[in-house]
Amino acid sequence: MLTLIAEIISVGTELLLGEILDTNAPYLATELKQRGVRLYNKSTVGDNLERLCAALEGALSRADLVILGGGLGPTDDDLTREAIAAVLGETPEVDSELLAHLEGLFSSRGRVMPLTNRKQAWLIPSAESLPNPIGTAPGWFVRTQGKVIVALPGPPHEMQRMWTEQVLPRLQLPESALFHVTYHTLGIGESNIAELLGAELTQSANPSVATYARAHGVDVRVAASAATLEQARALAQPVQAQLERVLGAFVYGTDRDTLASVIESLLSARGQTVATVESITGGLVADRLTDAPGASTHFAGGAVAYTNAVKLGYGLTPATLSAAGAVSEAAALELARGARQAFGSDWGLSTTGVAGPAPLEGHAPGVAFIGVVGPEFERAVRLDWPGDRRQVKERAALSAMGALLRALKEG
Amino acid sequence: MLTLIAEIISVGTELLLGEILDTNAPYLATELKQRGVRLYNKSTVGDNLERLCAALEGALSRADLVILGGGLGPTDDDLTREAIAAVLGETPEVDSELLAHLEGLFSSRGRVMPLTNRKQAWLIPSAESLPNPIGTAPGWFVRTQGKVIVALPGPPHEMQRMWTEQVLPRLQLPESALFHVTYHTLGIGESNIAELLGAELTQSANPSVATYARAHGVDVRVAASAATLEQARALAQPVQAQLERVLGAFVYGTDRDTLASVIESLLSARGQTVATVESITGGLVADRLTDAPGASTHFAGGAVAYTNAVKLGYGLTPATLSAAGAVSEAAALELARGARQAFGSDWGLSTTGVAGPAPLEGHAPGVAFIGVVGPEFERAVRLDWPGDRRQVKERAALSAMGALLRALKEG
Repeated sequence: MLTLIAEIISVGTELLLGEILDTNAPYLATELKQRGVRLYNKSTVGDNLERLCAALEGALSRADLVILGGGLGPTDDDLTREAIAAVLGETPEVDSELLAHLEGLFSSRGRVMPLTNRKQAWLIPSAESLPNPIGTAPGWFVRTQGKVIVALPGPPHEMQRMWTEQVLPRLQLPESALFHVTYHTLGIGESNIAELLGAELTQSANPSVATYARAHGVDVRVAASAATLEQARALAQPVQAQLERVLGAFVYGTDRDTLASVIESLLSARGQTVATVESITGGLVADRLTDAPGASTHFAGGAVAYTNAVKLGYGLTPATLSAAGAVSEAAALELARGARQAFGSDWGLSTTGVAGPAPLEGHAPGVAFIGVVGPEFERAVRLDWPGDRRQVKERAALSAMGALLRALKEG
Repeated sequence: MLTLIAEIISVGTELLLGEILDTNAPYLATELKQRGVRLYNKSTVGDNLERLCAALEGALSRADLVILGGGLGPTDDDLTREAIAAVLGETPEVDSELLAHLEGLFSSRGRVMPLTNRKQAWLIPSAESLPNPIGTAPGWFVRTQGKVIVALPGPPHEMQRMWTEQVLPRLQLPESALFHVTYHTLGIGESNIAELLGAELTQSANPSVATYARAHGVDVRVAASAATLEQARALAQPVQAQLERVLGAFVYGTDRDTLASVIESLLSARGQTVATVESITGGLVADRLTDAPGASTHFAGGAVAYTNAVKLGYGLTPATLSAAGAVSEAAALELARGARQAFGSDWGLSTTGVAGPAPLEGHAPGVAFIGVVGPEFERAVRLDWPGDRRQVKERAALSAMGALLRALKEG
């Protein structure tokens, strides 16, 4: 099985300087990955002929397929055609058929084609023109010394259509299929996961296992490539089994699952509902729980009890407030019970703590308590995870959802 | 004035393969541009030592300053330190001070540091460690043969803080001072802003005016560079005056101001409070309002009234529910009045609408009503802005805060 190596070069000073976000390179990377093409480098260069030529030469020395995006416009700073011609030592000439087509585009809108657009009708001997039905810039498909250079226009919808309709049919892609699955974990750090998996797994190339620290926990991605999807799936299977055995307790879902969607399906399966009373998270838990469609069937309601006065209306007792304080295990449990009562739900979930920047009731920012109360279930969890105000809120919300999830799995 | 040439290398297979979007490189590109540093290339490489070394060597041959982002984690596929050491021919050793700091981070959370994290305490002779107060990965600042290599962690908030607090003071940037101010607008689109400003402003190089579409509205950034900060400020002044004249009605703050912080200061100045009853936004408005420190002084409380049963407990009348429905102007006003009453606040803010994906009460997803009720003030706003569930929630929350802000400015 031949492995095809590709490289992407995004062309444009506005991309380089971060003035517009490059969405083309990620799109192409995903397309290549799905077809078993290896991508090892991608780069961005400004509108400068010398540096564009250097980038193209470098890419041609490493890859079989070089995809250039952008720089096909009509103006002086559109230099992709010039760079390909210079690197291959070929001279561009105006293609009369292309020119007629371009002039037709302008005359059909009652306009005369500016002279600068003539270079969009250029071709070099090794280039084939790729039609652009929704823009003026045709692409180039260049075959040279066993390698392929593709030049695509910058506007994403033009690029994607040309890639799909013109480039893919011309590329002789290796017959391979990729199977991948992403496990979402909670309550364990990236380095602990790596330790549990062991070097044998994390350093394996095919199937590969990679960990990613995300805002919602650490993701572990297993990928395998083979001639058919079935074979790739079979290749990944033993690794998946080992991973599930080792990490199972921390895994809450795969691929498109989210904490909210998993909680939603656990609640729906039992015909149960949850309600929240939030202090430190200020509504963030309710926000996340209502991100899953159909939230009104399992989310009974929520309160943001930021002040002590409001907390007293949602289950906090004056005795607990004066003895243990609003930031305490006892308060978290009372607020979770209060949530059940106020909204008539099966489960109650509460958060109370110190978001910062100032300490509160003698607790440092980052100290928080989560309360989970359900049918024959009561638990309080203490958190101590310093950070800025937003980080503390995010982590407390994540921990609250994790605590509810564990309770639902156990209960 | 010497021209400094920089290059950015983003490290990570997940960035290369388009699984997560690289926002660090655009951030750094903007930072460099603002300080007169030339950026000619940026590239992305996967977690592979050989290719990372090749990329670093290439960058060092072209640039004076090479910034590496990512690859500083504790696992086997975090290879940035290894690559720098290999390219410079230096041997990493565990720095005892760094190690003690890292172990302290873990023990303060009652955990033992996994062995894999030891490499985050590595240093090479030419590297200085850059502290990371909000993560485990310290950065590296490497001086070698008249060039500088900077290694920054991948998580954006860690990277930005390290760049600002640690890297900028160490870099000997060209002697020029930059003055800049960012205006935050709401209720106007990017192209309309560009039209109002005119080509004279948007194409000017110094001072420069740039627009950025953000989740919180469109930002307009004015920047001017000169020999001194005073001169730069003077250069920007006429542009700022023109911008404020043209866009003033849409500007709600500058620089670090957020909608929440501006609302907070308007409320605090009057000694007033606000409370929320949210349906469509599911707690997101309360979450945002409580992002400002000291929120308990101006945020009286909130309810997430997702089901009609809960809405009836927060001011919605059965008459309105049956006549106009829960997604209506009348319902929004009743819920805003309900918020004032339930939490005893001066202002009540409500949201009700269809987040999707299914239509509700004959309304398409994206249709929503905002209610704002205050002392001698009542207003309902209708929104119709289709999108996916999360987009609809985000926009409705933004509109609700915008509506409250306008009410506070008028009232």
